[in-house]
Amino acid sequence: MLLEFWYEFASTYSYPAAMRVAAAAKAAGVPLVWRPFMLGPIFGAQGWNDSPFNIYPAKGKYMWRDMTRICEGQGLTLKEPVRFPQNGLKPARLALLGQDESWGPEFTRRVYLANFAEQKDISDEDVLAEILSALGLDAATLLARSNEPANKEHLKTQTEEAIARGIFGAPSFVVGDELFWGNDRLEAALQWAMRST
Amino acid sequence: MLLEFWYEFASTYSYPAAMRVAAAAKAAGVPLVWRPFMLGPIFGAQGWNDSPFNIYPAKGKYMWRDMTRICEGQGLTLKEPVRFPQNGLKPARLALLGQDESWGPEFTRRVYLANFAEQKDISDEDVLAEILSALGLDAATLLARSNEPANKEHLKTQTEEAIARGIFGAPSFVVGDELFWGNDRLEAALQWAMRST
Repeated sequence: MLLEFWYEFASTYSYPAAMRVAAAAKAAGVPLVWRPFMLGPIFGAQGWNDSPFNIYPAKGKYMWRDMTRICEGQGLTLKEPVRFPQNGLKPARLALLGQDESWGPEFTRRVYLANFAEQKDISDEDVLAEILSALGLDAATLLARSNEPANKEHLKTQTEEAIARGIFGAPSFVVGDELFWGNDRLEAALQWAMRST
Repeated sequence: MLLEFWYEFASTYSYPAAMRVAAAAKAAGVPLVWRPFMLGPIFGAQGWNDSPFNIYPAKGKYMWRDMTRICEGQGLTLKEPVRFPQNGLKPARLALLGQDESWGPEFTRRVYLANFAEQKDISDEDVLAEILSALGLDAATLLARSNEPANKEHLKTQTEEAIARGIFGAPSFVVGDELFWGNDRLEAALQWAMRST
């Protein structure tokens, strides 16, 4: 069965997940789709107007230490972002355009690196244009398309689909009706996908 | 190095952790200590007067499904508790008396089974007495000791120690100054303990 990878660019644990999900799915022989969505409306409905890692300091302190260990284990650079959480709306609109295109996964990985390894502002269109250009894409055209009403609406409906599927955090993995929350559930999700053929 | 297992009897994910931590630590050659504490004061300080799994329904629904998969994988029975969360104060006071005694671990495991597999009320002293008696212990004496002011105070200071160590949820594993949160971090905690000799 298909593995759906649901992610939000502001989400810390989505970074190590995004960097390893393609290789892990390929090794397991499981087809993968990438699904960007926005956590903001979901958190807002729970009464949070900030990351729970900022609202609950003990949890936040732990998360950064845990992320440090995880990134070390995966050989990933982790640097304190320019702000936390960053606003992932603009890159999500672009990733949505690319979600079923060959450039989507690499664009997504590079935005995560910009956020969590390179201390870049991922809400800055110049930063996003640079990433698109480096992939040989027409940055100006894609940025314009990403800001069209139809694409904005598409991101909203995709976020509504996430909520309808039971998603409440990122990263989330979905296999059929089965939800797995967190980078640490990738292996369980892949095992489920391999079992359910 | 020593592995500290910090747990709360109301905590769902502490159940599979409690059932496997001793065998896992033994296999890794890591000495283990059991440390009961209370989540209530910690959650209360965050403005929660109920389990976050009740406060946030999507998270709660996912947790029960995730617990079902985890318990299946571990060969553990999981039945809906008589209420959720149960009040773990009385069994925690008893577990504290036994935390460095030979009967402590098995008492702890049987309380988790009573809560999550046997639909028993773990705040009921008769239920706890039955567990103690089955272990060949003097239930009346232990229950009386557990309710003495010094022991009540000890559980408070142990919970304050948990907070001072950065603990904000259960189960938590601590190796020296290093904190690992969640049943799914047991392996990482053991690896840390084996590395840090």
